[in-house]
Amino acid sequence: MKTYDFQSSNAFVELFEIPPYQSGSLDGLSFAVKDNIDIRDRLTSYGSKPWRETHPPAAYHAVCVEQLLMAGARCVGKTIADELTYSLDGENYFYGTPVNPRAPDRIPGGSSSGSASAVACGLLDFALGTDCGGSIRVPASLCGVYGMRPSLHRISEAGVLPFAPSVSTVGVLARDLSVLRRAMRVLLRSDHLALPRVKNIYLLQEAFDIADPAIQDALSGCIAHFDGLPHLAVRSISLRDITGLDVSLKSCNENALRVLQTAEIANALGGWIRASQPEQGPNFRAGYRNVEGFDRSAMSAALNLCEALFARVAAFTQPGDVFCYPTAPVLAPKKGVLTSSNLDVVLDYYDRTMAVTAFAGVARLPEITIPLAQVDGIPVGLSLAAGHYQDEFLLDACLRLLGSPPLKPAASFLAP
Amino acid sequence: MKTYDFQSSNAFVELFEIPPYQSGSLDGLSFAVKDNIDIRDRLTSYGSKPWRETHPPAAYHAVCVEQLLMAGARCVGKTIADELTYSLDGENYFYGTPVNPRAPDRIPGGSSSGSASAVACGLLDFALGTDCGGSIRVPASLCGVYGMRPSLHRISEAGVLPFAPSVSTVGVLARDLSVLRRAMRVLLRSDHLALPRVKNIYLLQEAFDIADPAIQDALSGCIAHFDGLPHLAVRSISLRDITGLDVSLKSCNENALRVLQTAEIANALGGWIRASQPEQGPNFRAGYRNVEGFDRSAMSAALNLCEALFARVAAFTQPGDVFCYPTAPVLAPKKGVLTSSNLDVVLDYYDRTMAVTAFAGVARLPEITIPLAQVDGIPVGLSLAAGHYQDEFLLDACLRLLGSPPLKPAASFLAP
Repeated sequence: MKTYDFQSSNAFVELFEIPPYQSGSLDGLSFAVKDNIDIRDRLTSYGSKPWRETHPPAAYHAVCVEQLLMAGARCVGKTIADELTYSLDGENYFYGTPVNPRAPDRIPGGSSSGSASAVACGLLDFALGTDCGGSIRVPASLCGVYGMRPSLHRISEAGVLPFAPSVSTVGVLARDLSVLRRAMRVLLRSDHLALPRVKNIYLLQEAFDIADPAIQDALSGCIAHFDGLPHLAVRSISLRDITGLDVSLKSCNENALRVLQTAEIANALGGWIRASQPEQGPNFRAGYRNVEGFDRSAMSAALNLCEALFARVAAFTQPGDVFCYPTAPVLAPKKGVLTSSNLDVVLDYYDRTMAVTAFAGVARLPEITIPLAQVDGIPVGLSLAAGHYQDEFLLDACLRLLGSPPLKPAASFLAP
Repeated sequence: MKTYDFQSSNAFVELFEIPPYQSGSLDGLSFAVKDNIDIRDRLTSYGSKPWRETHPPAAYHAVCVEQLLMAGARCVGKTIADELTYSLDGENYFYGTPVNPRAPDRIPGGSSSGSASAVACGLLDFALGTDCGGSIRVPASLCGVYGMRPSLHRISEAGVLPFAPSVSTVGVLARDLSVLRRAMRVLLRSDHLALPRVKNIYLLQEAFDIADPAIQDALSGCIAHFDGLPHLAVRSISLRDITGLDVSLKSCNENALRVLQTAEIANALGGWIRASQPEQGPNFRAGYRNVEGFDRSAMSAALNLCEALFARVAAFTQPGDVFCYPTAPVLAPKKGVLTSSNLDVVLDYYDRTMAVTAFAGVARLPEITIPLAQVDGIPVGLSLAAGHYQDEFLLDACLRLLGSPPLKPAASFLAP
């Protein structure tokens, strides 16, 4: 892998140095924050230069930043976000495209593109991102690093720009599972909990089925590894089996979660966009047309379905249960391909990816993507998810499932 | 009770008429929204004229408003909020004081002051409010109406101005329990759930102890009524008993929840206040000094305590459990008394009231205040709370506890 520095990674909006407030469990670790998270006395650009120019500097660090500084970590900069965080691409019209060091001709994924890139380039120990429809999980998977979206609202969002409050989360990307775990436990404010052992791994069959065959093959060794572990059961399951509702992952996204997201994003951005008519990149403009054309008066059934899916996944999930599926069903697309002149490719990327990411979104579950596999050197992530608010169990489950016996790097796995 | 109209109630920022989108379960009901909740094409003032003048009109209704319109209700106006919703008083420097029709020489309470006043005056069927540290529960209790703060994040906050995201909720005030239940079930998007029966009523002893003796006396008849119901147990409990931590309600507020709130409110308001130096009322200015003087670098222990309290209350609470306590430990203060020249009175009002409201805040519980009693005609509310996400159970529990056998209006109770 070619090496990149702070400049050549193109992962950063700006670099600075905020020392830790005191010594703590994150001593010696450096981090950066996605550019929709406030840093005191600095402008937050939300991936948009017009936003940056029309909003005052932050008066305080976001609470999540302060938690990390109080725990001994130092902050080294702000990473590029996709425009108004409304994208899974990582190609920003204003700031350019952070490098995907494992596959430099391909996109890093977004919207936490710079955070994924900076971590994958080894420029810092971990980075903060945000995730609504996959904005931590997808770039982490595409760049070959760990990424965790926690349970909805486990981490304070104060000082993080509002996006879709019923779905948005703050989380962490890291190269190393132990670093991910240390940083997350600070943000989660974990009590000393007695954690269950993993009892069941449920493979979300539809998510495997809609993944590219090469991805299915690349992940088969991991599944076989889990299947060989003692004292746990590995079995396939569908969203129908879990919820008792006649709903596929695809319709969970299209008829439920995406409707709620679209409505909420319009609330977050609509007033400013209408009043200031900001310059917009072509990809954002194309995507935002869906928001503006959306019929809000017809969303009742979708909102009810979201809540029913959440409640039923929660009722199904028992202590010790883990869900497992490919984080993204496609390999990172080539740079420059996801434009409106390739609408079929764009729709395929979004529709299939968000069918998978919608599961944890609608069920408000914690999910961790693990850089477990590759196809011709291109990273492939496997996701594990656990019940709502079972974040600490999920972090513990990842350690146990990967470590004992250790999941050895093989031809199909990235080196750990 | 003297009658008030839309004008003389002084409850409204503006009046308008938005018809329902379609027929539904709220047919025939009218509602108003607190002025921190977006209405399309209108300015949201957040209780502050300078805010109103420096922010663009909303491009969309808030999602919660749209849910009500889709269910058949019609929207008739915007109600006055306390300045930037940072108060429990109801005396707004810019917009004046909505009337408390049960006690016109007393404050209505805040920050959902206009919503409580409009409902208590009988001008509409229900109103939307928001609640962080008591901003629905306190004015509902002081004005003698029902008010429900739902579980944290059960209701979408899209289109509601950000305040303290780890604590803030959207909820409903109503004169009638059946109306409260109908409106809340639309907003909660309730599935058809099998609900447990009430098994235990836990009286939060410290909340009763810090209430004025007259309030303790006024509520004693209600407690005796509960105690006489078959098939349930009524017993006293402390926060220590519930959590196993050496924490009083008072310190739950002062050393945990209030710290988190203060930090998050600074994030929500700090950038705008610093950049625009807005005109501020004297009470807001005095309160906001606490935010500006707050040492954020020392909040680690408070954040951890918040999370531990949440987790331990959740682990304690079983299906069928209800917590019970006075909503506010004091009667509505006289108008004009809560100023910086009466600092002792102000501190007593806030410290005692927030010790009680902090319980549901930190534990993220749904809570309903019920207008069950009075002292010399001044309303006194009794609160019931249930486990996190047990909102439907709590609504059902209120109906059952009040209705079978009916809790008769007596000398000490308001007419239902």
